[in-house]
Amino acid sequence: MTTTRPDAAPAAGTRDRLLDAAAELFYREGVGVGVEALCRAAGVSKRSMYQLFESKDEVFAAALDRSAAAYRAALIPAADVGETPRARILHVFEALEAQAASPGYRGCPFVAAAVEVKSPEHPASVVARRHKDALTGFFQAELERAGAADPVTLARRLTIVFDGASARAVVQGAPLDGLAVTTATALLSHGGV
Amino acid sequence: MTTTRPDAAPAAGTRDRLLDAAAELFYREGVGVGVEALCRAAGVSKRSMYQLFESKDEVFAAALDRSAAAYRAALIPAADVGETPRARILHVFEALEAQAASPGYRGCPFVAAAVEVKSPEHPASVVARRHKDALTGFFQAELERAGAADPVTLARRLTIVFDGASARAVVQGAPLDGLAVTTATALLSHGGV
Repeated sequence: MTTTRPDAAPAAGTRDRLLDAAAELFYREGVGVGVEALCRAAGVSKRSMYQLFESKDEVFAAALDRSAAAYRAALIPAADVGETPRARILHVFEALEAQAASPGYRGCPFVAAAVEVKSPEHPASVVARRHKDALTGFFQAELERAGAADPVTLARRLTIVFDGASARAVVQGAPLDGLAVTTATALLSHGGV
Repeated sequence: MTTTRPDAAPAAGTRDRLLDAAAELFYREGVGVGVEALCRAAGVSKRSMYQLFESKDEVFAAALDRSAAAYRAALIPAADVGETPRARILHVFEALEAQAASPGYRGCPFVAAAVEVKSPEHPASVVARRHKDALTGFFQAELERAGAADPVTLARRLTIVFDGASARAVVQGAPLDGLAVTTATALLSHGGV
């Protein structure tokens, strides 16, 4: 007869299943999602959740972090020596336009997290900041490669356009119709790239 | 002896007190604020709240709408014939920088509302969209006065910068250090304004 000890560790895969369900649910419904609903969606017991994480806040932060790789892959082009920095930067804005036109779009998950938790010290804000900084870092590296005069400032401006365009798609509940790409293009041209 | 009938209408001023408290509390803590906490903060009974509004969602939308006049006054300059359209537009970004540097800053309240409620049909999203469109309308009117080639597009771009800069202040938990003003300036220069 197989017995399970009350303090047995959750089965392998439980953590990933919980985080994938959490990322999807928090993105769709916001930080207010309860622990019950979260565990139900993930098919994970509350006991397992609390063996793996100290709190719902920690689950939110870990879920956001785990979702970042796929999000980044959807935005940032693969290494390609044949592409100009300008084209690689605009690829991000074209990808944003495509995302913003999809019915389930709820804005940048990192900005949404930071806006919802209301504190820059919340674990989800810390994760959000790191991943937003990574996007700015991508822009900056490409701008340096392009020989831009002030790659740090221009990279921050491009991130502002990214987040403002994504906010616009949420507020309007409508696609961007090229506005993200043309605004980024205007700033690149103004910056000599 | 004074008696109060169970269906007596809430006293004059109750609505405004409820909405002012709601605007402040929702902005600080998010849409997840409960009815109990809301009524406690406003010093209003739940019975009064439900006599005035059908639901918490309706309170949220009405609070956002009531707060819009003060928010607009803090951003948009008073009519002044001596100021150029460019200066009047940049005034908005200077005001944003000042707001973003204050400790209680949690981003644009309209974007936050739309991001938090997750639906463009939510009453709060409808209010948010109307007030964001009013900001874009202000930019557009000034750009038309300046003779800009494409005032509609440039006004939308400036709103994107406004919202992206405000998102940056939230994500970074830090002031903008001129980034909103200089990004708006870059787009105005690129647009010939």
